[in-house]
Amino acid sequence: MTSSIVRQLVDIVGADNVNTDPAEIYCYSRDSTPFQHFADIIVRPLSTDEVSRVLKLANLNHVPVYPRGSGTSAAGSPLPVKGGIVLDLTRMNRILSFDQENLQVVLEPGVICDDLNEFLQKYGYFFPPDPASSSVATLGGMVANNSAGNRAIKYGKTKDWIMWLEAVLPNGEVIHTGSKTLKSVSGYDLTKLLSGSEGTLAVFTKIGMRVQPLPEAYRTAMFLFGDLDKAGKAILKARGAGVVPCAMEFLDRLTVRTSAEYAGLDIMDCEAMLLIETDGVESAAEKELKIIVKAVEEMNPKYWKIAEGERERASLWLARKSAYAALARCAVTTTMEDMTVPISKIPEALKRIQRIPERFGKIIQIATFGHAGDGNLHPTFLYDERIPEQREAFFKGLSAIYNEVALDLGGSISGEHGVGLIRKDFVEKEHGPVEMALMKGIKRIFDPNNILNPGKGKPWGSTGEPEVI
Amino acid sequence: MTSSIVRQLVDIVGADNVNTDPAEIYCYSRDSTPFQHFADIIVRPLSTDEVSRVLKLANLNHVPVYPRGSGTSAAGSPLPVKGGIVLDLTRMNRILSFDQENLQVVLEPGVICDDLNEFLQKYGYFFPPDPASSSVATLGGMVANNSAGNRAIKYGKTKDWIMWLEAVLPNGEVIHTGSKTLKSVSGYDLTKLLSGSEGTLAVFTKIGMRVQPLPEAYRTAMFLFGDLDKAGKAILKARGAGVVPCAMEFLDRLTVRTSAEYAGLDIMDCEAMLLIETDGVESAAEKELKIIVKAVEEMNPKYWKIAEGERERASLWLARKSAYAALARCAVTTTMEDMTVPISKIPEALKRIQRIPERFGKIIQIATFGHAGDGNLHPTFLYDERIPEQREAFFKGLSAIYNEVALDLGGSISGEHGVGLIRKDFVEKEHGPVEMALMKGIKRIFDPNNILNPGKGKPWGSTGEPEVI
Repeated sequence: MTSSIVRQLVDIVGADNVNTDPAEIYCYSRDSTPFQHFADIIVRPLSTDEVSRVLKLANLNHVPVYPRGSGTSAAGSPLPVKGGIVLDLTRMNRILSFDQENLQVVLEPGVICDDLNEFLQKYGYFFPPDPASSSVATLGGMVANNSAGNRAIKYGKTKDWIMWLEAVLPNGEVIHTGSKTLKSVSGYDLTKLLSGSEGTLAVFTKIGMRVQPLPEAYRTAMFLFGDLDKAGKAILKARGAGVVPCAMEFLDRLTVRTSAEYAGLDIMDCEAMLLIETDGVESAAEKELKIIVKAVEEMNPKYWKIAEGERERASLWLARKSAYAALARCAVTTTMEDMTVPISKIPEALKRIQRIPERFGKIIQIATFGHAGDGNLHPTFLYDERIPEQREAFFKGLSAIYNEVALDLGGSISGEHGVGLIRKDFVEKEHGPVEMALMKGIKRIFDPNNILNPGKGKPWGSTGEPEVI
Repeated sequence: MTSSIVRQLVDIVGADNVNTDPAEIYCYSRDSTPFQHFADIIVRPLSTDEVSRVLKLANLNHVPVYPRGSGTSAAGSPLPVKGGIVLDLTRMNRILSFDQENLQVVLEPGVICDDLNEFLQKYGYFFPPDPASSSVATLGGMVANNSAGNRAIKYGKTKDWIMWLEAVLPNGEVIHTGSKTLKSVSGYDLTKLLSGSEGTLAVFTKIGMRVQPLPEAYRTAMFLFGDLDKAGKAILKARGAGVVPCAMEFLDRLTVRTSAEYAGLDIMDCEAMLLIETDGVESAAEKELKIIVKAVEEMNPKYWKIAEGERERASLWLARKSAYAALARCAVTTTMEDMTVPISKIPEALKRIQRIPERFGKIIQIATFGHAGDGNLHPTFLYDERIPEQREAFFKGLSAIYNEVALDLGGSISGEHGVGLIRKDFVEKEHGPVEMALMKGIKRIFDPNNILNPGKGKPWGSTGEPEVI
């Protein structure tokens, strides 16, 4: 990074918003993966125009740019593997408008998911996607990852709620994709292409989203199983019951134990927990949960109950949403993976995951939880990255998760966290070489100099050679 | 078309499935627009391999290929404007599998929408997108157009239900996009890029779709208004009522009159009808409709009623779904347009549309109906294309619809029918030149020789010069 470029960056965003202090660079060097990479400079723009000028400058000088929100990625997606600029978008955090008549809200990318929902709640609306990190995750990051979370089973993913995007191309040009109407099929769908592209095609500066009326009521049931296989089969029973719940979450023994303790809940010993919620008008939420309970009971849970009142419901959800944080207290390193299988393969997937630590003499542990109703599991490695044997076992275990569980069972290497760094060695196996070539071609159209988030997912998101971790 | 190419096509699909008979060519020369274009040859493949070999041959010889389902397009999308091959996919019409555990069905592109729903109904499921042409439209065409219809307000568009596609690139290579799991964010979203690409990027040979459990009950209300403006405002009231109906349809005076007659319904004279439906467990459908009725009543409908029983509901829907067919009996030429506006602009849009025939001394008529809850209107021109003044008035009226109504009110030139031929002159105005360049770039990646559906939408779907109609 030449001093001339630094000076020009200072000109664009002001001296207060450019930082090369090693302490600051350090703060931006990690996310929630075990990887660490250092930028040359942190730049914090406040407007579309500033983003445009920063990108134009970087593009002219072939400087890598790594867009970043709150850095909650569990994939290494925002990490500056090739140095250059980390583009911190958290200052662009305004909710610009809420057009209640047209059921749409306009945001800057740095708005936090929970802040948006707190705002919308006042008007009787909500934005359904609900990652466990919703109290910190930015909408820009959620659009970039196409984040999902607990409610995707009924309400879909972030992508499904985005109507239009204002985004800046690497050359500084500002584009507007999609339509401000609820329905449009005019031209290729650039909005849905950008959403989920993990910061490799353009930088979002405004997001237009539709919103959903808040449901009148929720009903939540907790099921405990003495047997992992039965819990897996119960998911299928619940999914086949003919109604669509708004959440169907799975937690294995270790996750239940640690997160119940974290949330101050007294939960009996079990091999697995299912947490299933319905919503809608009160009578419907009630009736649909009853239908599901009846279906799940066929698999003989050792215990089940329907949450009494909002307080009990909230504590069950606190346990679920803090699963990752709770597990993180059990080990020096906690690495959450993200894979999906067809739901009929969940029992087999759980079995295979459970067997992985055994081949390393159990020097590492795996706790599994996730959005079972979508077939989306988060096997979470607990180990100590400072101990070479454990680190090696982790990387071998990682490979087993994606190759021997996800892909071998007809699944996908990522349900909602993206490819990033951690899954870059598996993406080529999921898609074929022809599909990869198409993705590479698309990348080249948007970012011919490969300045946006370079060094990620091997065959996509990079026209050059991937960085070796 | 050289005789050598014809011979090779015969080799691939068999003599019975290749046709150059002018009578046959004539049958494939139209859809439901006023345009007509003649292919050199009709080819009817039966398998992915045959599609692949036909495309490879066409690509090597730079012969245009026009994929076609049932030809119900209201955009001119399948018309062979540059001659060449019409690729009729209706022989590939098998439902290949229904995996009930994983809630997904696998189809060939020629399956008819209603046939799929008849099949799924036996198992308690349905595929929600419901175009008025569902009794004839193929799923391949629906994926290509990203078709929507009456239920999009609650259940989204065709694209939202597609999990994966098997498709053939112009060079004959077979690709597989998406994932067989309910959730995946691995790589760029080629599935959602292909869906809605109107046959310009690849030919679909297999479609993997998720399905939805059938709702227990429906409740349907009909509202009649003496005033167009009040009907428009009632849509906003209903949309703001805090619940999401599964349909919210609008029909203007002329559409009500003709389609009620068609369906044998006795409906009093009115300026507009709204048809609003809720679904779900019975108590919820009931309660949600009541909430909507209360909201709509604020706009003083001159009459309203809730359909009593399935028979009355069915006849209301027959009236709505036959709107286009009923209108077609009123004039020599009936051309259905497709535009969206933000729902708050519907009253103004209706006013502007109504004024258009006046400027041509009412030698043409426009009847308007559509999916009001999405802001999606279908102004339908009634005229006689054989009379030059009327044809000219139609083309000027067309331009007014897109420029002075849709785009001027912040809308889109297509909600669900696609750009095709009829909207090709307006797509550039909706998107900017930079966005157009990206779309062109994407087209070039998939179809460098521009053999797939060439001559459509001016700046996208064509790397060459567009055909002048």
